[in-house]
Amino acid sequence: MSSSKTLRKLHVVSPVPADIDIANSVEPLHISEIAQEVNLSPNHYDLYGKYKAKVLLSVLDGLEGSGDGYYVVVGGITPTPLGEGKSTTTVGLCQALGAFLDKKVVTCVRQPSQGPTFGIKGGAAGGGYSQVIPMDEFNLHMTGDIHAITAANNLLAAAIDTRIFHESTQSDKGLLNRLCPPNKEGKRSFSDIMFRRLKKIGISKTKPEDLTPQEVNKFARLDIDPDSITWRRVMDVNDRFLRKITVGQGPEEKGMMRETGFDISVASEIMAVLALTTSLADMRERLGNMVIGNSKAGTPITADDLGLGGALTVLMKDAINPTLMQTLEGTPVLVHAGPFANIAHGNSSIVADKIALKLVGPSGFVVTEAGFGADIGAEKFMNIKCRYSGLTPQCAVIVATIRALKMHGGGPEVVAGRPLDHTYLTENVALVEAGCVNMARHISNMKSYGVNVVVAVNMFSTDSEAELNAVTNAALAAGAFDAVICTHHAHGGKGAVDLGIAVQKACESVSQPLKFLYPLDVSIKEKIEAIAKSYGASGVEYSEQAEKQIEMYSKQGFSNLPICMAKTQYSFSHIPSEKGAPSGFVLPIRDVRASIGAGFIYPLVGTMSTMPGLPTRPCFYDIDLDTATGRVIGLS
Amino acid sequence: MSSSKTLRKLHVVSPVPADIDIANSVEPLHISEIAQEVNLSPNHYDLYGKYKAKVLLSVLDGLEGSGDGYYVVVGGITPTPLGEGKSTTTVGLCQALGAFLDKKVVTCVRQPSQGPTFGIKGGAAGGGYSQVIPMDEFNLHMTGDIHAITAANNLLAAAIDTRIFHESTQSDKGLLNRLCPPNKEGKRSFSDIMFRRLKKIGISKTKPEDLTPQEVNKFARLDIDPDSITWRRVMDVNDRFLRKITVGQGPEEKGMMRETGFDISVASEIMAVLALTTSLADMRERLGNMVIGNSKAGTPITADDLGLGGALTVLMKDAINPTLMQTLEGTPVLVHAGPFANIAHGNSSIVADKIALKLVGPSGFVVTEAGFGADIGAEKFMNIKCRYSGLTPQCAVIVATIRALKMHGGGPEVVAGRPLDHTYLTENVALVEAGCVNMARHISNMKSYGVNVVVAVNMFSTDSEAELNAVTNAALAAGAFDAVICTHHAHGGKGAVDLGIAVQKACESVSQPLKFLYPLDVSIKEKIEAIAKSYGASGVEYSEQAEKQIEMYSKQGFSNLPICMAKTQYSFSHIPSEKGAPSGFVLPIRDVRASIGAGFIYPLVGTMSTMPGLPTRPCFYDIDLDTATGRVIGLS
Repeated sequence: MSSSKTLRKLHVVSPVPADIDIANSVEPLHISEIAQEVNLSPNHYDLYGKYKAKVLLSVLDGLEGSGDGYYVVVGGITPTPLGEGKSTTTVGLCQALGAFLDKKVVTCVRQPSQGPTFGIKGGAAGGGYSQVIPMDEFNLHMTGDIHAITAANNLLAAAIDTRIFHESTQSDKGLLNRLCPPNKEGKRSFSDIMFRRLKKIGISKTKPEDLTPQEVNKFARLDIDPDSITWRRVMDVNDRFLRKITVGQGPEEKGMMRETGFDISVASEIMAVLALTTSLADMRERLGNMVIGNSKAGTPITADDLGLGGALTVLMKDAINPTLMQTLEGTPVLVHAGPFANIAHGNSSIVADKIALKLVGPSGFVVTEAGFGADIGAEKFMNIKCRYSGLTPQCAVIVATIRALKMHGGGPEVVAGRPLDHTYLTENVALVEAGCVNMARHISNMKSYGVNVVVAVNMFSTDSEAELNAVTNAALAAGAFDAVICTHHAHGGKGAVDLGIAVQKACESVSQPLKFLYPLDVSIKEKIEAIAKSYGASGVEYSEQAEKQIEMYSKQGFSNLPICMAKTQYSFSHIPSEKGAPSGFVLPIRDVRASIGAGFIYPLVGTMSTMPGLPTRPCFYDIDLDTATGRVIGLS
Repeated sequence: MSSSKTLRKLHVVSPVPADIDIANSVEPLHISEIAQEVNLSPNHYDLYGKYKAKVLLSVLDGLEGSGDGYYVVVGGITPTPLGEGKSTTTVGLCQALGAFLDKKVVTCVRQPSQGPTFGIKGGAAGGGYSQVIPMDEFNLHMTGDIHAITAANNLLAAAIDTRIFHESTQSDKGLLNRLCPPNKEGKRSFSDIMFRRLKKIGISKTKPEDLTPQEVNKFARLDIDPDSITWRRVMDVNDRFLRKITVGQGPEEKGMMRETGFDISVASEIMAVLALTTSLADMRERLGNMVIGNSKAGTPITADDLGLGGALTVLMKDAINPTLMQTLEGTPVLVHAGPFANIAHGNSSIVADKIALKLVGPSGFVVTEAGFGADIGAEKFMNIKCRYSGLTPQCAVIVATIRALKMHGGGPEVVAGRPLDHTYLTENVALVEAGCVNMARHISNMKSYGVNVVVAVNMFSTDSEAELNAVTNAALAAGAFDAVICTHHAHGGKGAVDLGIAVQKACESVSQPLKFLYPLDVSIKEKIEAIAKSYGASGVEYSEQAEKQIEMYSKQGFSNLPICMAKTQYSFSHIPSEKGAPSGFVLPIRDVRASIGAGFIYPLVGTMSTMPGLPTRPCFYDIDLDTATGRVIGLS
């Protein structure tokens, strides 16, 4: 056990109790104590209650000269629908490093959406004896970042429809007069943000009255093509009835109806902006540059064209500060951003990782999780997140389970909510060995980025020694730096000490720059094909719509952006049922979209749902408040 | 100037600068200093950054035995569309009492909606030298209460549509099996919240397998009549295109489309619940009792029937704690709840007032604002808010302006955004005198509750002494305890010292219980008619729809609730252009609705918009963040 003052010894019970019961059994430390342990002075954070603090971006100003710690990303093999414990392993590894190996360590994780918390999945704070606490504060509201995203996203949506409506009823001159109302002295002027649009359309005049009629038209009439609008409204609730709706049916809206829909808030481009931004000034530009659709002439229309980049930044100004929390064993956690892992890049924020790397300093560790399987989350971590941050990881942890490897070896389908087949509960070494092809491809993919790969086998009580040995042997044979059995779910950090040691060695024995899978300055198609090849595909097939979109984005000057594939995580290929390591398939690209402000183009491989639904009996049936103690009950 | 440590001397500039410039010119105190001044110990509040703290409801436990301060409500005469400075007067009066008259004082105000902040109106933190600061934190997100309301409201909305959908595709038995899934041992059981529904429908069995087929049907099938659903979705954005929408148009929803719409979040019944609740346990019951519509058989369906009362309470558990902020002169403010003033009761929360009254103690002052004109906001303060809280006010302040009185005397129409007519900028004593009938009726209405009435004339630089004298004379003649000229907008608390003295005397010289306008145990119609009489109406006319609804609510057992009139604030009557003190008119009741969980029935007098729109040039064009300093600019 380390000597640090904030660390907490766990009293482990077997069998492992429910997550909420474990979380509630530990009294969290006041977050100022955690802050002190990572040398955060009180002027560098704002408290949000007793157990959460927002770390101010300004902390970086004072740390510019100091060195970074080791940077570890946690990915996984292609998972079953039950998940293989990536978050739990991320937390467990940090508990081991911090509480047992005497290392400075910060865990960086995503903020979960509230939708699944009340739907099917429950919370996302890790599990067993490897959790972020307080679990209810982690899963609900937290410090309001997702609410800020919802507010900003929907203000932009409201501005789009209202602008189209007002343009439909007003002359060019009327529009200009309303956009630039006279002040008390009767003088009209442009607001600061209007100069951004004037510059974009090549007008250098500074007074509204100097514009020619053509310039007035060009400036004041955005002429948005309603059919081109890609900006949807969002809500952090699983509301399937909002997937496709018609708006504008009130009598005051004079028949200007339009089909659109809601996504869940974490699918908003603003979430992706939050995750990829590097500073307030950078966020201001990204938010202003978000493209909501095209004019009828085909010009991209941005949030700044609508006058909103500044207001969106104001709504997001606190959200840019990561939230400090703690693990069950008292090690620090930064929770920040949680973009979708298919239509976005599925990684927590750059700013949190940057702050964490400075706080732990050289020889300290920052462990950050990449969503989905490593073919998606970790690939995007490397090619999108690290490209924008300039940071270099030393180690990739690949989480594997005997259960998932058996599935890849040919075991029966695993379905959430249904009892596991007998195959998964009894020894079958051959099946495990057969499934290791999946793990091997993830290992070799990750190695190609120049990092050391450590396999973490997240052990279940039903796993046999022979099965576990089969995995570690296969991992080493596939080129892993090390492969370690972990029991952090049952034992907390103590169960991940071997993993911690392996990760430390892996980090210390690598020192090369990150090798990207593709350069930015090749065509969109070349980039897509490079990623497809890493999946095992022999080629790529583009739909007519995809071709059209690629041509449009290339013409609009967006072809130099990185690529964010929207693909299932349940197979290397586009077909979820193809387990193991499929190859020789042709990857179909159904459509291509873009998050210009966030900074990526996302090809759609198949259909992606961006708004989950509630089941007949959602989690909320069990959730209540003990009004006498104020304690949340039934959260899972 | 008082001796208190937190009070701050203002350096007043003339002419009065823009609100945001005044707000930014003052460095707010750390909120823990304000907390200390009102004897709040650190274990009774949670910090939210440096300038906001949530005061925990538990503070009341330790103060049960101590006495309350004086309780002052601020209402207004029938206003112009520009507003007559009720919030500013509320803040100015408190700055006078706290910073100049050495009184313990707490200001209780509503949290503003973000919609108007980015739309037309701008913020709502008061104005000039009488403001709540930091103004940007007050107007944006604050401590997340409205976001929590949005999340809770929309989770309930999603649950309604999803339940109807699932009921349409499943047998009674299938529904029961899904609602009560087997545990690991294969046993089915009811969750705690299901016992609420079982009790409601008269079933005392405790095991799912014991239900008869009829009981299964009764329990598991809510059979919601889609046409009866009154629960709408909400968003804290001015989004006019969401006023009327069709949901469920996605292919997975199998054609189960439905017309519905969004209101702005502050119009949610959950906001009214927050404002009227008295404890966590009370809030749990009110949220569970909210009626979302009827079954096809006409039974009201509640949030608890849908299994959601507990989860909604969990989402609202932090929102129930009021937010402590400060005025420009360093006096404490509690910001909490902000229900609509037409379809709801337009007053800040009961819990904030209760906490404030204990914190200031006997001889201290709590000043709370009631939205709209006194015919609406203050009437509801008395008959709804005080009825639920059991608190007794001593003094009602009626804010009047020369401008509004001239309008009531027959001056030309006042329109927001258009220059004021010359009449309002030059002396016209006769017009002012003629308009005083409006003020006189408000005074006499308020007096009937047993409180002393003090008129605060919010002075503008164009007002003449003769005009001002005319008002104070008329006020005294109408029975006001006192009438005082105030200049707090230009001078801060110093400009409201006379008002503070008058209010103090008014409070000290009254000691009678609150006399309600109507008892609860008469019929809905009798209650409506009592309120209509206070407007000057000679009678009430009910539409067929209103008659039907009154009959339904009476049959459902809800006739004992107080009445919350949804009427324009621009006239005592239902016609906004009828200024002065109209009488002899017949008040038309178009429809009658109910917020059963919040606890009132609301008759609709005319059409009420519950979702504002954005203008062609919304406020957001001026709002930006100075990314170098992190300061918000352009907020008004």
